[in-house]
Amino acid sequence: MKEVKISLIGYGIVGHGVVEVLNKKRNILKGLGLDLTLISVTDHTGTILDDKGIDADKILSEKTLANVATSGMKGKEVIEAIDSELVIEVTPTNIVHGQPGLDHMESALSGGKHVVTSNKGPLVVAFNHLKKLAVDNDVMLKFEATVGGTMPLISLAERTLIGNTIYGIKGIFNGTCNYILTRMAEESIPYLHALSEAQDMGIAEVDPSYDVEGVDTAGKVVILANALFDMSIKYSDVSVIGITGITPEALSLAKKRGYVVKLIGDVPALTVRPTLVPAGSPINVSGTLNSAAISTDLSGTITVTGLGAGSIETASAILSDIISIYMTKPIDFYF
Amino acid sequence: MKEVKISLIGYGIVGHGVVEVLNKKRNILKGLGLDLTLISVTDHTGTILDDKGIDADKILSEKTLANVATSGMKGKEVIEAIDSELVIEVTPTNIVHGQPGLDHMESALSGGKHVVTSNKGPLVVAFNHLKKLAVDNDVMLKFEATVGGTMPLISLAERTLIGNTIYGIKGIFNGTCNYILTRMAEESIPYLHALSEAQDMGIAEVDPSYDVEGVDTAGKVVILANALFDMSIKYSDVSVIGITGITPEALSLAKKRGYVVKLIGDVPALTVRPTLVPAGSPINVSGTLNSAAISTDLSGTITVTGLGAGSIETASAILSDIISIYMTKPIDFYF
Repeated sequence: MKEVKISLIGYGIVGHGVVEVLNKKRNILKGLGLDLTLISVTDHTGTILDDKGIDADKILSEKTLANVATSGMKGKEVIEAIDSELVIEVTPTNIVHGQPGLDHMESALSGGKHVVTSNKGPLVVAFNHLKKLAVDNDVMLKFEATVGGTMPLISLAERTLIGNTIYGIKGIFNGTCNYILTRMAEESIPYLHALSEAQDMGIAEVDPSYDVEGVDTAGKVVILANALFDMSIKYSDVSVIGITGITPEALSLAKKRGYVVKLIGDVPALTVRPTLVPAGSPINVSGTLNSAAISTDLSGTITVTGLGAGSIETASAILSDIISIYMTKPIDFYF
Repeated sequence: MKEVKISLIGYGIVGHGVVEVLNKKRNILKGLGLDLTLISVTDHTGTILDDKGIDADKILSEKTLANVATSGMKGKEVIEAIDSELVIEVTPTNIVHGQPGLDHMESALSGGKHVVTSNKGPLVVAFNHLKKLAVDNDVMLKFEATVGGTMPLISLAERTLIGNTIYGIKGIFNGTCNYILTRMAEESIPYLHALSEAQDMGIAEVDPSYDVEGVDTAGKVVILANALFDMSIKYSDVSVIGITGITPEALSLAKKRGYVVKLIGDVPALTVRPTLVPAGSPINVSGTLNSAAISTDLSGTITVTGLGAGSIETASAILSDIISIYMTKPIDFYF
């Protein structure tokens, strides 16, 4: 049995999902030989610590840790002080400066701890720096949950298609935009009307610009380019056009000609823009679904679709990353 | 560097693809630490042997091995006599008795050799028997290429989604049927007309019954049920209806109501039948594409689509399986 002590940094929607999933799957994971114990959870109010394992029932009903924190330690202090071998980083994302996640990841990797994250910001700002830290300290940096949520895109490209040369990846990487475009096309309603509906349903934020201006999608393009195409690009290298200028008339004209309009991120083209997609294309998915088409030399084009967001779904991608750390070996390592 | 000597049994379309792909990817694989050497290739005419590695250029232009065979040995003799640690089994499939592949796989697994295959027959007839042989002899039986060709369904379900409970898998597992149904819907042509077109294009066999009666799809349902759902079922446990009774009128009626008709295999329902699928569903793919929707407890529904067949594409799935043998470890094995 491999015992792994874990620190969770960040206790928002995804953090709650992580606690729930680790708790729910504890016995199944033990059956696989993996005993995962969450020994600390931290948010902006403080930290709850228990070396025997945090009681999920005790904290899941709490929106923040304010009422249950046993220590005032913040993220970086916890990472440096606590004897965990793996850090799950799920603090709020900031793709301009990457903080506070960037500090957390640097501390963890430098300290020889694996990092698993859904936090795009630090990877957009400093992917190659973080990757080098991981390699230098002989630990893993895993980030499936940063792109396409539950859609196993990184794992597919890095592991399953490992013998292939990947020519490119195109896809729908933002569920909010896809929902708005889907509703505009279905009901022939203007952008602002569909946005307002999405906001009412909690699918779009009160300030939707991060999604609808294409910023979120562009961040994912940066991560994919650096992680899967050995590029070394910044956010500003991506050419970005969002969906705010799309009219129902444009969608209806496209439909007449057998197309839909989707916000497509493209690597290695490094573009994000509303794009005509043939209606019959596998990447044409509707509602909040995400999709990605991976074009390869041997396997043709493989397309994967799934939910782009959600507390449990994102936590599931994080869990999958954790398991892969302990199930994947470099081929020549054990021979 | 891990050196792996490989015997290839079967030298039809897929076998040619395997030789081509192993040759093409040799240096990339060495970069991963994996030195794959094909030391024998066998078909019904005999065997070509070279312990230093078969010269791909010498045999790729040959339709059979008749002109280049250096030995009269057949599959089982080769497996028993040759010092390979991995056998690629790609002989013609027979889902009634599984031969000759079943004998080949039994010999290889019993002799402590890994088996990687695209051959459905032996797995449909004797999956649990073969799986037990593999476990008893501490080797791997890998069969991604048997279901959905290049679509990484088994790997997704077994590895990437390992923390998930899989509720079910529904999909389009036969490219020939999908092509026929797609053309019938597009052009409002009768079944026999579309079949004839598919035959002209080499997409359907002269005797198409294996595909159009649902036999091939049902075989894949058997493999998925036994491999991913711990079932122990036979071909006769699957309820099968093919596509020969579908009319263009039915397709056109479905279309009016926002549906398409696809031949869907369903596990664990153990059914194969023409099914109404919402036009916007991610499993609605056209032409010869395959698709599969995996519904899970944590990740929602993940859908994957890709080419269901093809020489290089199938060989790519075989290569992916080979790599995974040497890159995947049981979690508790090394601790």
